[in-house]
Amino acid sequence: MLVVGVVGGTGYTGVELLRLLVTHPQVELKYVTSRAESGKKVAELFPNLRGFIDICFTEPSVEALAECDVVFFATPNGTAMQMVPELVENNVRVIDLAADFRLKDAAVWKDWYGMDHACVDVLADAVYGLPEINRALIKNAKVVANPGCYPTAVTLGFLPLIENGLIDDQRLIADAKSGVSGAGRGASVATLQAESAENFKPYGVDGHRHLPEIKQTLAGVAGHDVGLTFVPHLVPMIRGIEASLYATINSDVTDLHQLYSDRYSDEPFVDVLPEGMMPETRTVRGANNCRISVFRPQQGDVIVVSSVIDNLMKGAAGQAVQNMNIMFSLDETLGLNQVALVP
Amino acid sequence: MLVVGVVGGTGYTGVELLRLLVTHPQVELKYVTSRAESGKKVAELFPNLRGFIDICFTEPSVEALAECDVVFFATPNGTAMQMVPELVENNVRVIDLAADFRLKDAAVWKDWYGMDHACVDVLADAVYGLPEINRALIKNAKVVANPGCYPTAVTLGFLPLIENGLIDDQRLIADAKSGVSGAGRGASVATLQAESAENFKPYGVDGHRHLPEIKQTLAGVAGHDVGLTFVPHLVPMIRGIEASLYATINSDVTDLHQLYSDRYSDEPFVDVLPEGMMPETRTVRGANNCRISVFRPQQGDVIVVSSVIDNLMKGAAGQAVQNMNIMFSLDETLGLNQVALVP
Amino acid sequence: MLVVGVVGGTGYTGVELLRLLVTHPQVELKYVTSRAESGKKVAELFPNLRGFIDICFTEPSVEALAECDVVFFATPNGTAMQMVPELVENNVRVIDLAADFRLKDAAVWKDWYGMDHACVDVLADAVYGLPEINRALIKNAKVVANPGCYPTAVTLGFLPLIENGLIDDQRLIADAKSGVSGAGRGASVATLQAESAENFKPYGVDGHRHLPEIKQTLAGVAGHDVGLTFVPHLVPMIRGIEASLYATINSDVTDLHQLYSDRYSDEPFVDVLPEGMMPETRTVRGANNCRISVFRPQQGDVIVVSSVIDNLMKGAAGQAVQNMNIMFSLDETLGLNQVALVP
Amino acid sequence: MLVVGVVGGTGYTGVELLRLLVTHPQVELKYVTSRAESGKKVAELFPNLRGFIDICFTEPSVEALAECDVVFFATPNGTAMQMVPELVENNVRVIDLAADFRLKDAAVWKDWYGMDHACVDVLADAVYGLPEINRALIKNAKVVANPGCYPTAVTLGFLPLIENGLIDDQRLIADAKSGVSGAGRGASVATLQAESAENFKPYGVDGHRHLPEIKQTLAGVAGHDVGLTFVPHLVPMIRGIEASLYATINSDVTDLHQLYSDRYSDEPFVDVLPEGMMPETRTVRGANNCRISVFRPQQGDVIVVSSVIDNLMKGAAGQAVQNMNIMFSLDETLGLNQVALVP
Repeated sequence: MLVVGVVGGTGYTGVELLRLLVTHPQVELKYVTSRAESGKKVAELFPNLRGFIDICFTEPSVEALAECDVVFFATPNGTAMQMVPELVENNVRVIDLAADFRLKDAAVWKDWYGMDHACVDVLADAVYGLPEINRALIKNAKVVANPGCYPTAVTLGFLPLIENGLIDDQRLIADAKSGVSGAGRGASVATLQAESAENFKPYGVDGHRHLPEIKQTLAGVAGHDVGLTFVPHLVPMIRGIEASLYATINSDVTDLHQLYSDRYSDEPFVDVLPEGMMPETRTVRGANNCRISVFRPQQGDVIVVSSVIDNLMKGAAGQAVQNMNIMFSLDETLGLNQVALVP
Repeated sequence: MLVVGVVGGTGYTGVELLRLLVTHPQVELKYVTSRAESGKKVAELFPNLRGFIDICFTEPSVEALAECDVVFFATPNGTAMQMVPELVENNVRVIDLAADFRLKDAAVWKDWYGMDHACVDVLADAVYGLPEINRALIKNAKVVANPGCYPTAVTLGFLPLIENGLIDDQRLIADAKSGVSGAGRGASVATLQAESAENFKPYGVDGHRHLPEIKQTLAGVAGHDVGLTFVPHLVPMIRGIEASLYATINSDVTDLHQLYSDRYSDEPFVDVLPEGMMPETRTVRGANNCRISVFRPQQGDVIVVSSVIDNLMKGAAGQAVQNMNIMFSLDETLGLNQVALVP
Repeated sequence: MLVVGVVGGTGYTGVELLRLLVTHPQVELKYVTSRAESGKKVAELFPNLRGFIDICFTEPSVEALAECDVVFFATPNGTAMQMVPELVENNVRVIDLAADFRLKDAAVWKDWYGMDHACVDVLADAVYGLPEINRALIKNAKVVANPGCYPTAVTLGFLPLIENGLIDDQRLIADAKSGVSGAGRGASVATLQAESAENFKPYGVDGHRHLPEIKQTLAGVAGHDVGLTFVPHLVPMIRGIEASLYATINSDVTDLHQLYSDRYSDEPFVDVLPEGMMPETRTVRGANNCRISVFRPQQGDVIVVSSVIDNLMKGAAGQAVQNMNIMFSLDETLGLNQVALVP
Repeated sequence: MLVVGVVGGTGYTGVELLRLLVTHPQVELKYVTSRAESGKKVAELFPNLRGFIDICFTEPSVEALAECDVVFFATPNGTAMQMVPELVENNVRVIDLAADFRLKDAAVWKDWYGMDHACVDVLADAVYGLPEINRALIKNAKVVANPGCYPTAVTLGFLPLIENGLIDDQRLIADAKSGVSGAGRGASVATLQAESAENFKPYGVDGHRHLPEIKQTLAGVAGHDVGLTFVPHLVPMIRGIEASLYATINSDVTDLHQLYSDRYSDEPFVDVLPEGMMPETRTVRGANNCRISVFRPQQGDVIVVSSVIDNLMKGAAGQAVQNMNIMFSLDETLGLNQVALVP
């Protein structure tokens, strides 16, 4: 059994992580920390967990967390990097669901997140936790930077095309849409139901923090910088991300569907749909899958890829557990065999 | 391993049942029938099941279903009663999620469902599948009538009060609310999203088919007929039932919360909430639990009980699997340890 | 033209009031105040008003507001009572959409709202602004206490029965449901879309502030105290209230539908539906109507009334404008002829 | 007063048209036809219209409709073209909200709509009713083809760029999203709330009927064929369309915002938002406005335009009334001064 700690268990990625960990057959959940809720039963804040977890929130402390084999951070950006160095020194492995270890260049990180990076050394060794490209590195990583939700959907969608150099990668377009849980559980006017329900809007057109993250990964795959226009939108639903991706093809591909099927044939959580079937976010609600379709409308030179995930699962907590399974040589799907909740 | 068949697997209770059965550790799902979809892959109709089930829908046939240990009917009312007698003769045990075997009096059944009952003999032996009152009978039943969704929420809410004769049972009021999945997956104008979303309404005030079912069960508990006003309402959400129950107290109860806690202390799926905590339907979304609170506002003589279930789980498919577990002496919670999906 | 001011125009009742006032043919909207947004264009905060209003939010000042014929308060409870006395001295008439002048007994007010009343004299003269019972008084009132949303729906539903002494008024039950806009536009976790959507729950069972308000009005009608159990619920939609009312009949009424139709035949905003038709909240979305149906299920002695309003219209801003029209002898429906938005 | 008829008043564009017409100061609504509902009161089917309309649905007949000055068709595609020639002969002017007169080339029409066009002569004279490009022609048109919902949002968004030849018009991308009312009021499984709520998906990637309509209009503006990739998506809300448009700039534009502001400065229903403000569909809910923003992310060569409308208003019924106002030389905004319903 793995001894597991969760730092910051009161947000949406936190409670989703708890949902997965309390039924994971190889996990002993020892600590769930929260400064604000310290002393309160976890199941009092989240009654869906009644009967599954008896412990209380505690104050985060390195001393206690050092008893764990692995610690997840489901904290605001900038928190994990304060504690991770000490945990690493204590041989605790870390999976950070925030952004602290996602951008390899600390200067770029500062540009987008507005603070100096607190542990550039650890950052250098951290592994970007997208199993479909980094499985071997994840296995041995001390610190895994769990990818952002949009980056997961967008990257998996573009990957086979970029890897094979089939598109003009200087003018990629990603029109992405997310449910409101992506905005987090903090009190805010903009995501009150009376504001965000029955409404649809783009946001962050001028620059969203997931833009440099996606570009970094795609550049790594392409071997050179890529150009990307990324426009996120807010969808009046709780969970789910859909990314519609557009690119101009620059070669004669005969079978795009085969290309995608082959690329992901061994991936337990990437599902290339049968030709002509369109992804829907609800088919991954509560599940760790990414479902993808690829189209070439009117046989023109613009390719359209649609990719869906549950932002809290493959886009956050589910992928984090997948990474844990890889890191500790467990079956990669252990504890992740949920069927999406339909309807 | 139990060999299992599902007749009528294309509706919402059907697909929910499939979700539970494909991950149930003691189930081999052999047949899923549908006249309309025969020959199509189940996972093509319900892509959330991709990777979990490979079989196709087949035409329902007694010959094939006779290979099963247990057959679930997730069919429209009036269908199961046509096939069940033959299955019973073949020693197949049956769990009917429709209403065919819920009302013991065939004349009352005809009044409310508008057709003659096709197998009064089988009806006489059928057991009403509410484990909290009929566990022993369910264990040996050939045919289990899985309770309706509203009746489950309302009955569990009133049960401790009626069993102890604490209220005026001639003037019970049940103000119940259900998500739209309760209306089923048939094409209909009334439950189009553009009609039922952003809308709230009562319906069936003049008489809903769940009224005689609730009255029958409560009368059985009370030992005499009860009076009940039952008003269902449609809630603009997919899953969930909340029942607010009102009754006038007729004795000096000192601790209602204790009464409820004691009554349900051994029940794996009934959760009496801590005093002052209000049930919310989302805390049972996708889970088989019923959560209950009891109040006595301003210490007056009117008691208020609030009871929530997921209409597709404890109100249908989950309770059906619970009944199967009981019938075959499995751990009652096997395959039902889902944590409700929050958010 | 009436010169009009709105104090506190940044909440949901505020913006709804602005929607009505900017197109009202007899209104010149001179001031919209907000301490927090002072200096910002109103249409910048609420872009739906672009093209209809050019002024900016200003700091509230008695001096400026004294230029108005009428001032609406759409402020938190406890704010209006601080400014109203001075305005009244300046011969400005006031319509308060908050609760400051709703409860005639200042001690009861303190019990429920937790503060001393700041102007008991003004309170004594204030008129409860439910036109269907107080039209004549409203006409001459200096200060109108605009009724709460639940009280409007519940009171109009019970009124014909109470006025005629037809029911046991010691054991009234009001099971009420409201959309989330009723909770206001303040940042809060509980009404984030990810919390309140796809969820249904009761709240305030132990005592909601609208309970004493309803009881006060019904007692006034009955001529004696009444007993009421009031349970509000939160519905996952933006606008709308439905109240299902239950009472035991104590006399031989031959035609309940006729009773209601007669009572409200001259009321421009109360619509008794044809027999058998059920109210739906969407049929009043954005409109000032209250639609009502009355039932006697199975011809028993329990009467069921269902009453729907838009909580921001007949439950707040619409009723406030109706009161303004009455106070200034305008056509009562002026500026209120909106057709509800369906779908 | 204009005598007005509506053919096919039972769908969503129909009821929205009725909402506008019953309060339009220059309209006498004489006929609302429906074969299916003939004889039923209009306000019985749509209770939001109670008090505003007393007439019943009637069978459609040319004889009766010939009494009208103008007849609106809110019918399925292929219906209007059967009746319009006779009406035109009777000097009745026609506004068709369906697609029968939108595509000028009858062969293309047949390709996309699967039937022969029934009146190619009338088609030749019909005017595409987008006031922002065809106002003068609309004024004198006998038959106005009211534009589709997506085409309205997309065309208005691209218009200033295409008119000025500023972009590569061979590789336009329109990623559009619509609320479910766009799918109509017909019974269907796909838009049941339990299917489409809490879900987001693309559809029609291989070819949507609005594609040739948009291309025809943009080609007319450009003076040559354009290339367009158009991907519609279904949003879990009732009303609203947002189109995110992407194009590569091919010249040195110094001020895109100014370009858009100038182009639409005289348009009563196109609102170019202040720089940096993002359109939201709710700010046009129930209103006839199109709100637009234009961006140039990171000062690159890809321009992003976001355009929102209410699909039932500027995308259907509102635009139809705007066209009627133009055709009969009324103030273009008459009866269309609704403030969008927020929240």
